[in-house]
Amino acid sequence: MAARTALEPAALRSPARIPLRPAAETPPRHGVRVGRIPLFEPTPHVPQGYSAKAFAGEVVPFRVVSFREGHDRIGVHLRLTDPAGNDTLHRMAPLGDGTDRWQVEVALDATGTWTYRYEAYADEFATWASSAAVKAEAGVDIAVMCALGAELLAAAAAEKDRPAPERTLLKAAAKRLKKPDAVQLGAVATDAAVTAALHDRPVQGVGSRTAALSLTVERATAGVGAWYEFFPRSEGAAQRKDGTVKSGTFRTAAKRLPGVAGMGFDVIYLVPVHPIGSTNRKGRNNTLTAEPGDPGSPYAIGAAEGGHDAIHPDLGTEKDFLAFVRAAQKEGLEVALDLALQASPDHPWVTEHPEWFTTLPDGTIAYAENPPKKYQDIYPLNFDNDPDGIYAEMLRVVMHWVGFGVRIFRVDNPHTKPLQFWEWLIAEVNAQDPGVIFLAEAFTRPAVMRALAAVGFQQSYSYFTWRNTKAELEEFLTTIAHETSDYMRPNLFVNTHDILTEYLQFGGRAAYRIRACIAATAAPVYGVYAGYELVENVARPGSEENIDNEKYEYKLRDWDAAEERGESLAPLLRRLNEIRRAHPALRQLRNLSVHWSDDDAVLVYSKHLDAAFTGTGRPDTLIIVANVDPHSVRETTVHLDTRIWGVEPGDEFLVEDLLTGAEWTWRDHNYVRLDAFAEPVHILRVKERP
Amino acid sequence: MAARTALEPAALRSPARIPLRPAAETPPRHGVRVGRIPLFEPTPHVPQGYSAKAFAGEVVPFRVVSFREGHDRIGVHLRLTDPAGNDTLHRMAPLGDGTDRWQVEVALDATGTWTYRYEAYADEFATWASSAAVKAEAGVDIAVMCALGAELLAAAAAEKDRPAPERTLLKAAAKRLKKPDAVQLGAVATDAAVTAALHDRPVQGVGSRTAALSLTVERATAGVGAWYEFFPRSEGAAQRKDGTVKSGTFRTAAKRLPGVAGMGFDVIYLVPVHPIGSTNRKGRNNTLTAEPGDPGSPYAIGAAEGGHDAIHPDLGTEKDFLAFVRAAQKEGLEVALDLALQASPDHPWVTEHPEWFTTLPDGTIAYAENPPKKYQDIYPLNFDNDPDGIYAEMLRVVMHWVGFGVRIFRVDNPHTKPLQFWEWLIAEVNAQDPGVIFLAEAFTRPAVMRALAAVGFQQSYSYFTWRNTKAELEEFLTTIAHETSDYMRPNLFVNTHDILTEYLQFGGRAAYRIRACIAATAAPVYGVYAGYELVENVARPGSEENIDNEKYEYKLRDWDAAEERGESLAPLLRRLNEIRRAHPALRQLRNLSVHWSDDDAVLVYSKHLDAAFTGTGRPDTLIIVANVDPHSVRETTVHLDTRIWGVEPGDEFLVEDLLTGAEWTWRDHNYVRLDAFAEPVHILRVKERP
Repeated sequence: MAARTALEPAALRSPARIPLRPAAETPPRHGVRVGRIPLFEPTPHVPQGYSAKAFAGEVVPFRVVSFREGHDRIGVHLRLTDPAGNDTLHRMAPLGDGTDRWQVEVALDATGTWTYRYEAYADEFATWASSAAVKAEAGVDIAVMCALGAELLAAAAAEKDRPAPERTLLKAAAKRLKKPDAVQLGAVATDAAVTAALHDRPVQGVGSRTAALSLTVERATAGVGAWYEFFPRSEGAAQRKDGTVKSGTFRTAAKRLPGVAGMGFDVIYLVPVHPIGSTNRKGRNNTLTAEPGDPGSPYAIGAAEGGHDAIHPDLGTEKDFLAFVRAAQKEGLEVALDLALQASPDHPWVTEHPEWFTTLPDGTIAYAENPPKKYQDIYPLNFDNDPDGIYAEMLRVVMHWVGFGVRIFRVDNPHTKPLQFWEWLIAEVNAQDPGVIFLAEAFTRPAVMRALAAVGFQQSYSYFTWRNTKAELEEFLTTIAHETSDYMRPNLFVNTHDILTEYLQFGGRAAYRIRACIAATAAPVYGVYAGYELVENVARPGSEENIDNEKYEYKLRDWDAAEERGESLAPLLRRLNEIRRAHPALRQLRNLSVHWSDDDAVLVYSKHLDAAFTGTGRPDTLIIVANVDPHSVRETTVHLDTRIWGVEPGDEFLVEDLLTGAEWTWRDHNYVRLDAFAEPVHILRVKERP
Repeated sequence: MAARTALEPAALRSPARIPLRPAAETPPRHGVRVGRIPLFEPTPHVPQGYSAKAFAGEVVPFRVVSFREGHDRIGVHLRLTDPAGNDTLHRMAPLGDGTDRWQVEVALDATGTWTYRYEAYADEFATWASSAAVKAEAGVDIAVMCALGAELLAAAAAEKDRPAPERTLLKAAAKRLKKPDAVQLGAVATDAAVTAALHDRPVQGVGSRTAALSLTVERATAGVGAWYEFFPRSEGAAQRKDGTVKSGTFRTAAKRLPGVAGMGFDVIYLVPVHPIGSTNRKGRNNTLTAEPGDPGSPYAIGAAEGGHDAIHPDLGTEKDFLAFVRAAQKEGLEVALDLALQASPDHPWVTEHPEWFTTLPDGTIAYAENPPKKYQDIYPLNFDNDPDGIYAEMLRVVMHWVGFGVRIFRVDNPHTKPLQFWEWLIAEVNAQDPGVIFLAEAFTRPAVMRALAAVGFQQSYSYFTWRNTKAELEEFLTTIAHETSDYMRPNLFVNTHDILTEYLQFGGRAAYRIRACIAATAAPVYGVYAGYELVENVARPGSEENIDNEKYEYKLRDWDAAEERGESLAPLLRRLNEIRRAHPALRQLRNLSVHWSDDDAVLVYSKHLDAAFTGTGRPDTLIIVANVDPHSVRETTVHLDTRIWGVEPGDEFLVEDLLTGAEWTWRDHNYVRLDAFAEPVHILRVKERP
């Protein structure tokens, strides 16, 4: 189905790919680290020497600092080796911002481990040509420059790996310089064909190269996708006559899949589906005693019926689960499971492996706690008592579900388990199936969050939910797109079953619309927890989560009725996901630029993808303008750096609002009016450019 | 003499030094990079893996990111190995700013190569104590917590390397927990003596450590000192009756040394002292033809009399030079020579080693050029023609002057020679004499400037001269103190023979005073080119250098007469250097903090050194408030983060202006009035604190 194009890899593309040739490397000097032409700060770069990451189809900016002494010109190449061992060579361009940084963008296709290295060399022709052009104009050194040029071009023409037409071209150019002639000198130095030939196959003088660095390309879903979270027990749950609720099952939940797929989502994420403990089971609204019929928190995993490798009997059987996974696949949805590595006191591990927990001097097993608070429905694992045993069991659990076709895991509280456990587990799982994806639920300190990403997590929740003002979002979006994107991919969930921010609690429908528009356009992965469509914005007083939290009870919702009444945000989500599928620029992480407005609540950013990478031959540019104050109407001027999409400052271009269909002629400075209660956000595509 | 204390190394001091013990290291897991307790981003850090740098007596902040899963406490140690192989252990403290960064500051004394590594471990007592204190208060888990505590303390008491009194103390504490008792539990958990003992010799659970990293400590002069530049030929030069000038000599120049030393300078830097070529010699004001009697640029090195290892006959003999070096030493001044690796057409290298230059097709040697401009008095070396020959010769030249007692070289235009040459040369020279210091004259692009520092240059000129506004200086000072200080030491020259900025040209005497005050207090190395005292601020029209530039002619100055007339800035320079000697905080690079003012021309920064590092037992704090607009009087409020020097916000403290003697009672917000024409800068010391 057409929907799947969102996740299909792009072919390897680089506007600067050139014919493959060996590197020019001046032998390194004994005891000296730096090469003849310095190459510093190669990126992508991940702290602590971990491999950099990309997803299939991702356009990766490769950058390196290179310069040489004096005025002579240099060239810099990126040599890429794909997982099959094939090399390609890419000519880099100087950023020209005074940093001596060179860059080339490449869209990586094949999954697996790539290597990249940088090569810098004296560009003999460029050095000669720039000097010759100036001297021809000034009429100085004509004889010497002609002689030098003739020699250089004759040598280039003699290079064996140069195609015949090029050799002929260069030989002729050399001949034009045989006699001193200022006019010929200037003409050859600026000859477009000669310059092009020697751009693609430069004449390399002294040179050096970096060591090979590694970059892991994961399948597209590691970096692109719209996620939808639900509690399968709520989908199809029904109230009995006595007021109690009959649990939904995988069979009834599967009936919701067409609706979720119809909104354009790619991943359906289920909270834990395992048996739930009854000892110290939590009641509604996190009370300490459950009433009869309270289903308990699915995070209190383990009961007589089994543990992490079992299915809750209320939801059905393994066969039902398999049918659910298949039904999802049919709808173009991939199933993600929750990996919450903790046990209820009733978990089989407790009797079979008491050594996996902490036993206190009184012989009891320690509950999870944050003194003096105690969580008596949960025993945390103690990874230091029997690491080998625990590690092996966790790997077994994950691979058990991989056997059911599940290749995405949302990991609950990874920051409460040893970091080295995750590094080990993800590497082991990916060694068996490199397509398995782990999303870290780590709303924790920045160093911890980044470390989890560096050691292997394919995705991270990030701080998106708590970044709501214009200033916060500008900083946040710049950071995720440019500072951490070599290893961290934020999944911009707008809400979760644990998080209902004050912005959503008190911002009304406008807040829900604004956040969805930003999440869906600012990063290639975003997510929604069921109920967002219905603007479920009432919190348990004093908390940052929903009242009557679904963790502790069934939720009975009528999606269709809400949509029929015009109260659902499903149409907006549907439209946003359509826009995402239609616009490859939105399926990239690193191509975001923050622009400016004169209003402190009007956020402006663009997502641009060059024609070389869109697959259509046309560039794809979106400009998002959002009034992030959900309580006001704002009129202001936005200021755009239009050069990013190839439009000179001051030139006009046509934009179309993809939410309303309105069209305007814009330039670098534009008036906008954003009414939080009607149209809080413009999602503009650049429709025509000069 | 007392003056020399400025350069004397401090003893190794760290307020957090603890008894030496082996590290607790949980065996690393196969194939996993991260240890049981993660340790990330160790600093000091230099790009590209070069060794970090410090100077003897420098207080170095050692930092590392460390954290663990869950709520358990960790401890982090720095293990330092000095060049003699002796280890010390230092307990680090969390910065507490949400970054999971730990820090300890250590003053490094011995020169040579140090290694450092970080160790993190589960702090078993801290974990127990924090939980026990809360639970004792809440009256929960008393029995279990007493039992756990008794076990932990008994084990600590049994540790063999623990001194007897501590063992007794801990045994007694364990005994108090033998029976469940909430009062005893709370008391032991918060017992000061027990906590102190287990802070210095913690009970370590699981742990990990980093690889050993290297840090080179150079002699103090590499990082601290006041430099004075002069042209020896001008010192003692005299006009003859016919209007021509008789050159000064080393003998006459030596007469100026007491004056320079009297102003408190530490280093006397001489522009090149070698024979000057006569072919294409430049005339006054950089004209193409020299008049008879024009001495030529000392940077056009080499004549029949010799090259880089020779003395210009006008200056005297090798014996005279040696006498000059000794006279300087007597005055407490160290001589720095200029290393300008280029040749006049008359240099002996040209005939002896034509292969060290570039020969053109017409058989001539290529001049230095920036097409179409040509510098016909200079031949640049071509390092690629005979690198071995050139490298060996340059090493010979440097060691030749080292043989004369010269151990500081100011390197002219290092960015026009291969970076790998400098890495090689500095390493070779330092292998023979680690005390030799190289200052890079590289006012070039940031990446190049930083690379020169990273590969070995002990000092760099930096962009100081072009950072004149408050905003520019705030960013510049923060960068040199905190971003690049692990490897780059800026020498804040206020002017040079090549640089007379517009700020100085048009800012009058006030500009000269302001810049001297900032240079002398913001970094531990700064410099002045002779004539600054006399406010020589007239530029060659359209240029950024002095008219009648001393490079091309003799300068006849009467230092004493100017001072007698009250026109000289020598008294200010003398006072600034006195202040630098009296205040160890000014002899550090990394201890600068920028503060705030409400005026966009009033710059505020402090330099603070803890009592542990001053040698006096008292902290040393200076607050510098500068009106950087040399044309106005400014009144404003300055805002200080007084916690940096241990004063709570709002508390009063007494400050003394070291330039005027005025005293004020200050707190975190203070009124200032700075009159550019009278007192443009306050240099305040904190005289009394609450």
